[in-house]
Amino acid sequence: MPSHRPVIALAMGDPAGISPELTAKALTLREVRDAADFVVFGDRRVLDRGAKIAGVEVAVPSVNDSSQVQRGASVFVDAHSLDPDTVQTGVVSKVGGAFASANFRAALAFAKAGKADAVAFTPFNKQAMRLANPGYDDEIGFCQEALGIDEAASEFNVLEGLWNARVTSHVPLSGVAPLITRERILRSLTLTDRSMRQAGFATPRIAVAGLNPHAGDGGNFGREEIEVIGPAVDEGRARGILCEGPYPSDTVFLRAKTGAFDAVLTMYHDQGQIAMKLIGFDRGVTLLGGFPFPICTPAHGTAYDIAGRGIANIGATREALLLAARMGAASAQKSEAAAALN
Amino acid sequence: MPSHRPVIALAMGDPAGISPELTAKALTLREVRDAADFVVFGDRRVLDRGAKIAGVEVAVPSVNDSSQVQRGASVFVDAHSLDPDTVQTGVVSKVGGAFASANFRAALAFAKAGKADAVAFTPFNKQAMRLANPGYDDEIGFCQEALGIDEAASEFNVLEGLWNARVTSHVPLSGVAPLITRERILRSLTLTDRSMRQAGFATPRIAVAGLNPHAGDGGNFGREEIEVIGPAVDEGRARGILCEGPYPSDTVFLRAKTGAFDAVLTMYHDQGQIAMKLIGFDRGVTLLGGFPFPICTPAHGTAYDIAGRGIANIGATREALLLAARMGAASAQKSEAAAALN
Repeated sequence: MPSHRPVIALAMGDPAGISPELTAKALTLREVRDAADFVVFGDRRVLDRGAKIAGVEVAVPSVNDSSQVQRGASVFVDAHSLDPDTVQTGVVSKVGGAFASANFRAALAFAKAGKADAVAFTPFNKQAMRLANPGYDDEIGFCQEALGIDEAASEFNVLEGLWNARVTSHVPLSGVAPLITRERILRSLTLTDRSMRQAGFATPRIAVAGLNPHAGDGGNFGREEIEVIGPAVDEGRARGILCEGPYPSDTVFLRAKTGAFDAVLTMYHDQGQIAMKLIGFDRGVTLLGGFPFPICTPAHGTAYDIAGRGIANIGATREALLLAARMGAASAQKSEAAAALN
Repeated sequence: MPSHRPVIALAMGDPAGISPELTAKALTLREVRDAADFVVFGDRRVLDRGAKIAGVEVAVPSVNDSSQVQRGASVFVDAHSLDPDTVQTGVVSKVGGAFASANFRAALAFAKAGKADAVAFTPFNKQAMRLANPGYDDEIGFCQEALGIDEAASEFNVLEGLWNARVTSHVPLSGVAPLITRERILRSLTLTDRSMRQAGFATPRIAVAGLNPHAGDGGNFGREEIEVIGPAVDEGRARGILCEGPYPSDTVFLRAKTGAFDAVLTMYHDQGQIAMKLIGFDRGVTLLGGFPFPICTPAHGTAYDIAGRGIANIGATREALLLAARMGAASAQKSEAAAALN
């Protein structure tokens, strides 16, 4: 149905890593091209360098400004902002961070203006982002600032049908327990359920992890499971979310891995990250949820060590773009349905 | 060298699970019999029932009292404490917990009296242990009480050459950070290093995990790495321990798994347990360290669901007994060397 064909604003990431070759390669994949139209933000020279490295030819025309973008085809918005000869492969730089930041801001603004249904980006380098943006903490903070949004947002990790969401993220471990409230858990459950439905799950099955060893062992090693998490799970179910738990965090992923659940909601960063990375999350997708549109990126980093050699694996980028397309299509469909009712 | 042949006090665990068949089967394995002499504590009728289930014959003579045990051969100390016909397979019971507790106490006392170099046991059922021992928290507390020892003890998880030790264990997550002190980390490092040398590592390579997400990200998400863990690692190295870190806990196990380290010292229970269980710790060994002798048990549980069918996997029990034998031999050797010097 061409009317629901989504538009994805795709930002080129750090130019010193594998981002240029990933961007170029992704744009040549039939599966990806079939799923959406892409409006790519970057510098054409950097893209062409990436294409050369990847050994592909990118058949996407360039324009100089996003105002020239027409619906119905993929296009490259060439900011002419970075000469690839000034970038040293595999080296952190402020210009690299500035390039990625500008592309990302442009893609976010494009989507915020209602011209794209989803945003995606190839990997950033955190150090370079910090050089270019003092005070940079993580992508979520960057997006909130760039979009002028203060609402709760959340990172999801998606690996082969298994989702991981978390109630708290980049906070010291000593600060986790006080943040585990019924409200926060319910908000995460709601956002997870909504995002997964948008991604195509009819009724996602969400397991909720406990906070304490052995999920508190009946109150012997902590009471949050009894007093906070359990009641939040009950309330979530009452609201129609297929959630259960709290389960001990050291076995819940074993069960999820074998298909017992579609998602695990963890209470803190490493509880999920330790598991997801061991399961192979490097091949997965990071989704930033809670924004007006989905924002997707491959889970792996800039891979400075293998940059420029044409051996970067496209798998996670392909999955990121396909997830963005799937979610973008669902939201485009919804807006069209809403528009049709007006 | 027969003079260093270790003696292992082996306690039969919960009679309603797979412990009887595991005990019987283990005692028939040549590799196990070759490694040590076993003094087994239990009820001969329960052992014979286990042997029947496992389809083996146990060629170990019985005595009625541990005072009758002679060095130089394996022997079964028959307490005649439990008629197997009174035990329902796969059901938690107080008599089951009492049986396992009594066997374990007897084995610990035997080793405490200097008659064994190590202790091992087949799986307990925690609920049954609690029915028989009100206030029972975990095996470490049980051993401390049974041995009248108040010193720091620690659980190690061992899987195919990869060790995991932890600075804190069965405490609520909210209580972890205040317990992360230089002294505690150093004590854990020292105990890990010593135990691993005893187990045969010439110079164990120990990675130390951070406490916070991204190991604090340079102080952005917590300062324990900078103020406490880093200095403790430096001090450990100054004392001759081959340790490094702190490393982010969500990638340190990926590196350890591929052989970069022999051990990971984690800061809290689930940090290590999430990883070890995903790597397959069910096939591994739990070692209680910090006691006057090593205490080993298979990492898996009583497996009530498959008890009595003769299909229990002997792998983890075999590894537990071989580790006990290796560590027991090293400590026996040391005492003999010390005696020779007198």
